[in-house]
Amino acid sequence: MAQAQPIVGVYLSDSLDLDALYGDAIRAIAEDVILLHPAQVERPEAVRFAICWLPAADAFEPYPHLALAMSIGAGVDALMNHPGLAPAVRIARVRDPHQADLMAGFAVHEILHHEREFETLARQAHTANWHPLPMRAPASRCVAVLGHGTMGRAVVQAVAALGFTVRVACSRPPAAPVAGVHYETGPTAIDAAASGADYLINVLPLTADTHDVLDSALFERLAKGAWLIQIGRGEHLVERDLLAALAEGTLAGASLDVFREEPLPAAHPFWLDPRLRITPHIASDSLPQVVSEQVVETARALRDGGDMALVVDRDRGY
Amino acid sequence: MAQAQPIVGVYLSDSLDLDALYGDAIRAIAEDVILLHPAQVERPEAVRFAICWLPAADAFEPYPHLALAMSIGAGVDALMNHPGLAPAVRIARVRDPHQADLMAGFAVHEILHHEREFETLARQAHTANWHPLPMRAPASRCVAVLGHGTMGRAVVQAVAALGFTVRVACSRPPAAPVAGVHYETGPTAIDAAASGADYLINVLPLTADTHDVLDSALFERLAKGAWLIQIGRGEHLVERDLLAALAEGTLAGASLDVFREEPLPAAHPFWLDPRLRITPHIASDSLPQVVSEQVVETARALRDGGDMALVVDRDRGY
Repeated sequence: MAQAQPIVGVYLSDSLDLDALYGDAIRAIAEDVILLHPAQVERPEAVRFAICWLPAADAFEPYPHLALAMSIGAGVDALMNHPGLAPAVRIARVRDPHQADLMAGFAVHEILHHEREFETLARQAHTANWHPLPMRAPASRCVAVLGHGTMGRAVVQAVAALGFTVRVACSRPPAAPVAGVHYETGPTAIDAAASGADYLINVLPLTADTHDVLDSALFERLAKGAWLIQIGRGEHLVERDLLAALAEGTLAGASLDVFREEPLPAAHPFWLDPRLRITPHIASDSLPQVVSEQVVETARALRDGGDMALVVDRDRGY
Repeated sequence: MAQAQPIVGVYLSDSLDLDALYGDAIRAIAEDVILLHPAQVERPEAVRFAICWLPAADAFEPYPHLALAMSIGAGVDALMNHPGLAPAVRIARVRDPHQADLMAGFAVHEILHHEREFETLARQAHTANWHPLPMRAPASRCVAVLGHGTMGRAVVQAVAALGFTVRVACSRPPAAPVAGVHYETGPTAIDAAASGADYLINVLPLTADTHDVLDSALFERLAKGAWLIQIGRGEHLVERDLLAALAEGTLAGASLDVFREEPLPAAHPFWLDPRLRITPHIASDSLPQVVSEQVVETARALRDGGDMALVVDRDRGY
C-alpha cells in the first residue's frame, strides 16, 4: 500500500504549549500528520491547517494555503470572531464525550452543594454539632438549562437523573430529547425556561445573539433567591447585573467558572463575595488523547477530501 | 356507599414526635385511619398496627392484636431485630422515590467533591489564586456500589449518568439492570465489585450477613487511596478498621452519614479527622406527604385483606 502524503499543520497559541500537550500523542498514532511550531515552519505555503487556542491577531497571516482552523476546546467563538481568519477557512472543534461528562459533573455538584447546604453542614461538623437540616424533594425544584449541544445535553441528562424538574432552552427542537424534560424553543425560549426556576445553568455557545444574555431582566424571571451556574463563556454575563441581583436578593449566589477576563484579575470584586463560588475555568477540559485522535482524523479528512464531522457551521456560529 | 370501619394504629417512637410529623397529613387524606399516641389509647386490644421509628424495647407489649409494624424509613433493621416484636407481626416500610433521588444526590455530591478537588479550589479562591487543576476522564474512575435496592439503583443510575465506570454488588441478578453497569452477584459479589475501585458506596440493608462488612479486608481490595461513602447503617462499618485504613493510606478519606451511635458523640474521634466528611444522617429522608399516603394505603390493605406492597420479607431481612 502506498504511503499517504503527509499533511502539515501548525500550532497557534499564545498561552498554551500545544506541542507539549498533544505532540507525543499525535506522533504516536500518525506519521502522516505533521505538526510544527511556527518557528519550525520552513515552507509556510505547505501549511494546510492550524490547531488553535486563543491565537494572536496576526497568527494566521504567514499561511496562504490554510484551509482549516481547529479549536482544541468545544467552543469556537475565539475562531469565529478572529479578525485574521479568512472566511474560506473552515473551522472545526474537538467533541469529547468525557468533556461533556466532566461538565455535567461540575453542574450537578454545584446544584447539590447549594441545595443540600453542604457549607452549613461543614461548619456544623467543625464544631461537632449534630444538627440535621430539612430537605426538599428534588422534583419540587426547577432547574433551567440554557443550551442543548453536546455539553448541554449531558448536563440535562445528569440533572434529570437526580429527580429534579428540568426545563431547557434550545434553538431548535432537540433531535434526541431527554425523557421527562420540558423543552422551550424559538425566540422566547430562554425567558420561558428561566421563569420561576430555582437554578439557572448557562451552557450556551457564544454568538452575537447570546452575548450578555445573563442580565437583570433574565435574573428577575427566576424564583426569588435562585442560584446561577455560569459555565458558558464570560461574555454571556453582565457582571454589574449579577452584583446588583446579589445585592437585591434576586439571586442567592452563583457558581462562576468563566469570566470576561481570564485569569480573573486578583483585584476583581467577585473574589471577595462570599455568595460567589469562583473556579478557574475547570468545569471541563478535553483529554489529550481524544484531542489528538480528532486532530489526526480531521487533518486526514482535509487531505483526502473525506467527511469532516467536526467542522462547525460558520453562519450559525457553533 | 357504606362508611368503612376505621382501623386504629399507634405511634411508637422514643426520639421523634410522629404525630407532629405526619398526623395532619394523615387526617387530611383519611377519616378511616386513626393514629394515636400510646397515652391516648383507651382500648389497646383495638390497635391493629404501629407506625415506628426506633421503638423502645417494651413498646409493643400493650397491644395483643397488633398485626403490622411499619417503619417510616427505608431500613427495617430496627424492627427486624426488635426483641419485643412477635414473629407473626408483619413488617412494612415506606418506599419513597424522592428519598432515592435524595440519596443519589448525596452520593454523587460526595464523589464529585473529592474527585474534582473542590476543597482545594475553595482554598485557592479564598486567596484569589487562579490555578486550574488537572482532570481525569470519569470513565477512567471506578465506583463500586454495594446494594441495589430502591436506594442503590438510584445511586447507580445517577453515577453512571455522569460517565463513571460502575460495578455493583447485589444478592441476585437485578430485575432492572442499569445500562452499561457491571453487576456482581453471589457470595463473592462484594469482594469482586470492590476490587480496584476508586470509590466505594455502601447502600446495603443491615442484616446478619452485612454487619461489619466495611472492614480492613474489604478496604485493602480497593485502589490505594480510595474514598468510602458510607450511607447504609452504622453497624456496617468497623470503626477501628476505618481509622487504620486512613492511617495507612489505604483510604484517602471517607464521607460518613451514618454511625453506630447517633447522634455521633461529641467526643468521637471521627469529628476531628480532616479526612472524614461527617454529616448528621441526612443523605436522604422520606417526605411527610409520601409517608402519610403509604401509611394510609397499607393500613387500609391490612383492614380489608388487600395487597400490602410495602411489607418486607422477614426471612430475607429487607
